[in-house]
Amino acid sequence: MLHIIPLGGLGEIGLNSLVVACRGEMLLIDAGLMFPSEGMPGVDIIIPDFTHLKQNAAQLKGVVLTHGHEDHLGALPYLLNEVPVPVYGTRFTLAMARHRLNELGLEADLREIEPREPFSVGSHFKVEASRVTHTVPDAVGYIVRTPEGTVIHTGDFKLDPDPIDGLRTDLERWGEAGEQGVLCLLSDSTNSELTEETGSERVVEETFERLFRGATGRIVVALFSSNLHRVRHLLSLCERLGRKVALQGRSMIRNVEMARELGYLDVPDSLFIHLDTVSQLAPHRVLVLTTGAQGEPRAGLSQLASGDGPVRLDPGDLVVLSSRPIPGNERSVGALIDQLQWRGAKVAYAQLEPGVHVSGHASRPQQRRVLDLVKPRHFIPVHGEGRHLHRHLATAREAGMEPAQCLLAQDGDVVSFEAGRGRFSGSVPSGRILKDRFGSGVVTPDTLQERVKLSETGMVAAVVVLQRDNQKLVAGPQLSGQGLNLDEQVLLPRVAQEARSIFEELSPQLRGDDALVREELTRAVRRAFKLYTARRPLVVPMVVRV
Amino acid sequence: MLHIIPLGGLGEIGLNSLVVACRGEMLLIDAGLMFPSEGMPGVDIIIPDFTHLKQNAAQLKGVVLTHGHEDHLGALPYLLNEVPVPVYGTRFTLAMARHRLNELGLEADLREIEPREPFSVGSHFKVEASRVTHTVPDAVGYIVRTPEGTVIHTGDFKLDPDPIDGLRTDLERWGEAGEQGVLCLLSDSTNSELTEETGSERVVEETFERLFRGATGRIVVALFSSNLHRVRHLLSLCERLGRKVALQGRSMIRNVEMARELGYLDVPDSLFIHLDTVSQLAPHRVLVLTTGAQGEPRAGLSQLASGDGPVRLDPGDLVVLSSRPIPGNERSVGALIDQLQWRGAKVAYAQLEPGVHVSGHASRPQQRRVLDLVKPRHFIPVHGEGRHLHRHLATAREAGMEPAQCLLAQDGDVVSFEAGRGRFSGSVPSGRILKDRFGSGVVTPDTLQERVKLSETGMVAAVVVLQRDNQKLVAGPQLSGQGLNLDEQVLLPRVAQEARSIFEELSPQLRGDDALVREELTRAVRRAFKLYTARRPLVVPMVVRV
Repeated sequence: MLHIIPLGGLGEIGLNSLVVACRGEMLLIDAGLMFPSEGMPGVDIIIPDFTHLKQNAAQLKGVVLTHGHEDHLGALPYLLNEVPVPVYGTRFTLAMARHRLNELGLEADLREIEPREPFSVGSHFKVEASRVTHTVPDAVGYIVRTPEGTVIHTGDFKLDPDPIDGLRTDLERWGEAGEQGVLCLLSDSTNSELTEETGSERVVEETFERLFRGATGRIVVALFSSNLHRVRHLLSLCERLGRKVALQGRSMIRNVEMARELGYLDVPDSLFIHLDTVSQLAPHRVLVLTTGAQGEPRAGLSQLASGDGPVRLDPGDLVVLSSRPIPGNERSVGALIDQLQWRGAKVAYAQLEPGVHVSGHASRPQQRRVLDLVKPRHFIPVHGEGRHLHRHLATAREAGMEPAQCLLAQDGDVVSFEAGRGRFSGSVPSGRILKDRFGSGVVTPDTLQERVKLSETGMVAAVVVLQRDNQKLVAGPQLSGQGLNLDEQVLLPRVAQEARSIFEELSPQLRGDDALVREELTRAVRRAFKLYTARRPLVVPMVVRV
Repeated sequence: MLHIIPLGGLGEIGLNSLVVACRGEMLLIDAGLMFPSEGMPGVDIIIPDFTHLKQNAAQLKGVVLTHGHEDHLGALPYLLNEVPVPVYGTRFTLAMARHRLNELGLEADLREIEPREPFSVGSHFKVEASRVTHTVPDAVGYIVRTPEGTVIHTGDFKLDPDPIDGLRTDLERWGEAGEQGVLCLLSDSTNSELTEETGSERVVEETFERLFRGATGRIVVALFSSNLHRVRHLLSLCERLGRKVALQGRSMIRNVEMARELGYLDVPDSLFIHLDTVSQLAPHRVLVLTTGAQGEPRAGLSQLASGDGPVRLDPGDLVVLSSRPIPGNERSVGALIDQLQWRGAKVAYAQLEPGVHVSGHASRPQQRRVLDLVKPRHFIPVHGEGRHLHRHLATAREAGMEPAQCLLAQDGDVVSFEAGRGRFSGSVPSGRILKDRFGSGVVTPDTLQERVKLSETGMVAAVVVLQRDNQKLVAGPQLSGQGLNLDEQVLLPRVAQEARSIFEELSPQLRGDDALVREELTRAVRRAFKLYTARRPLVVPMVVRV
């Protein structure tokens, strides 16, 4: 029996992590994280629930990584910390993984692999990486051959006939595997709602060429720092046009350094200047490469917009947001563009200048091409929220696959293959583990609910001091508020008085039990508030006995 | 001199409110609200700062309303409460205004007007409403004639050659006014980033016809309840196809009722059934008209998705989201679609089925047409965030207007016209007033910051009890937390102990001052936390003296 068990990424964009299990051995493809959305205040990152792997640690033979993005390897430290196993990946991917591990003071057994060169994991997995075109160097998918059949996992991919690095998605190997028979195809669903072919990165090249040639002032380009294909093009454009490049943002500096060390960027030192010296050069001699195109509040572009950083934008400077807002970021990206425009900068962004960005993910017709090529026995759409998976499944149906061949799995589902037939056979623990900022603490749903409540209503701490021997009320209720509106702030002393008279009615016999007193104190404060307003701040009751 | 003073809507979508002032009299066009975005927990609505109107109350002669949407009249009660002036509007618009006022227990002097029938406001404003096509019945723009010149305000408009109600935007009158000379055009910028013509509502009609004819189960359509053109079409489609209609959602029920009373919807009672009886009819005999297409958590569609309401969706039912996510709502709308799909429903939404919605706002070529038609002496783009205004201004430049004719104003700017020339001449108080949920309290920036901080870090209330005469520490620090992560919850007793020993070092002489003690208590708790974790919960310090 072969089992495919997604632990993350089937129901969300992010958390990509999927188990292939066969004859008592498990192989994990990716260990990705996710960034928090609205309604998760204070949360830093989200990782998949790895309980199933921890409970079966001896079975896990290794992790293979598709590429260097956080949503594919960001949860690796949290897994390896508890289940230390070898990690396989291409050169650049491992460099990203190493960085992530080192940040948390961890080391791991990282094993570099090459596309098209098969390697073994455990005794049952013959694995082969296949080049894919994506927005980060060295991205691959995997062909996993097991005694029970072959599984292809595309990883994140697009089909670009003419990618910047000349490395096309290796459709040839997928086609060959397809001819030999593929038991199950797992394919990237991110862009399944889009009907137009995802454009070539050459489109972006041409757009930059045009924008740069028309620019007379400074140019600022904001993009994901891991998009090193695009960075490469920008650097060579600057070499040609005689602009010096200043890097802004920690991750930008780090990734460019890493890419230069690994030989992915071949540019002279003399191309670069320090950000602090930008103002010393003529505006038309400078490019600033920065981060924060998603409107992240503390990133480079936000600093430029607010005028906080060492570079001051002047009217006539050109700012290019070389990205599309990730759903949920539209508002903050919009506000950032507004701010840059009010400073007088010309802003090129995807809505007005579509060529400043192309996606790194295959769209529907390209997803279809992979299905047609591989002709798998079964298909499980991966990497996507529900509607992306649904739509990708519909594409498989349109490609002629039967309903029984198309398996719409969710995180935690176990899909088992026996005698070449797949079916849902159960589930394993799965879910999202929320990690708190500045620390390793786990944020439970209860904590989250408390935090949201705190932020919506504000809070009032209420304290009473009771005499230990006779339960007499010595002092209080005394109140202190945070996050209250103006009316409530004014009301607070009156509320405290009312609360006191309500609380005093509580007979001393009942005051022996702290929990009960806290309950009554909460009630008294709430009732006192009710006399003046319809709002109900969260009450934090405290009893001190003296 | 004529002054144009936007109080809201120039820098945001919402808050639309603009003063035209002439010879000591003021006319206000719209008094709109805005709904809060991320980062404003607990806030219910946002209204413009009306200080300038309150300070010059005697000058304000009236408010004219363009249409019945909240972002154009929702702040009316808050203005009239302090500056009671006559309100002019078309029939349906006034019905919406009346409802909004009654909700807050207010009455007002509401004066019904008809398009193309001039009326006077004060002694200097000759006002005439002009029909515009928008998504709500009875929408108008205004031609305001003053001794200093004519101002045209488009309101929210689109150009639909074949609108549902047959009432086209009255370009004829705008053209006539243009020929007589228009000093300043104020035109809707919402869709200035869009280069394709905004489609006709007929597109939606045809899409519904096709979807409905293909549907074999229940149909649910979610849309803005004020979009009564679309509701009208849906009702007549149901009459023709033999489906009964159940209304879900308070605003849907109210708006349909209001529209029927006013004669905008001519349908028999027998068309409607109560939501509770939906399950008694064959699925193909039912349509549910509901709210919540923007993913609002407690609205009709969310109830259907979660299975909480009286109607249970079955596989094969069709759900149509007849809207586009407002920026910022993409995530919640996406999650809602996912939830509906996992329940087995077929979901038609704009991304996959573009014809389920068309916008109510003119796009760039249509904005251009109005500029070309009116040929104003000056142009101020209104209704939009910064980049929408900027792009609309660029269109005016493309239309041949000179830089001095194009005035990029922001909320609070005073644009003054003298001898036919406009210029920026100063500013008045402006801004956003945040109103708290369940009450009239104002949420200040400080309060907002406290609330966000509370939600991101959680909080710890810390209390010490001191002896009144000798400042001796009687009890505490005692701690109580809310919104803490699991690690912090476990740590709390140890932190309290540490905080005690740190606090005890404070000499009794210094304990006489409550503020100082609170400061030291906060410091002690923070230092104690620091021994264990990098996180810093907000500390709410309290001193009780006994």
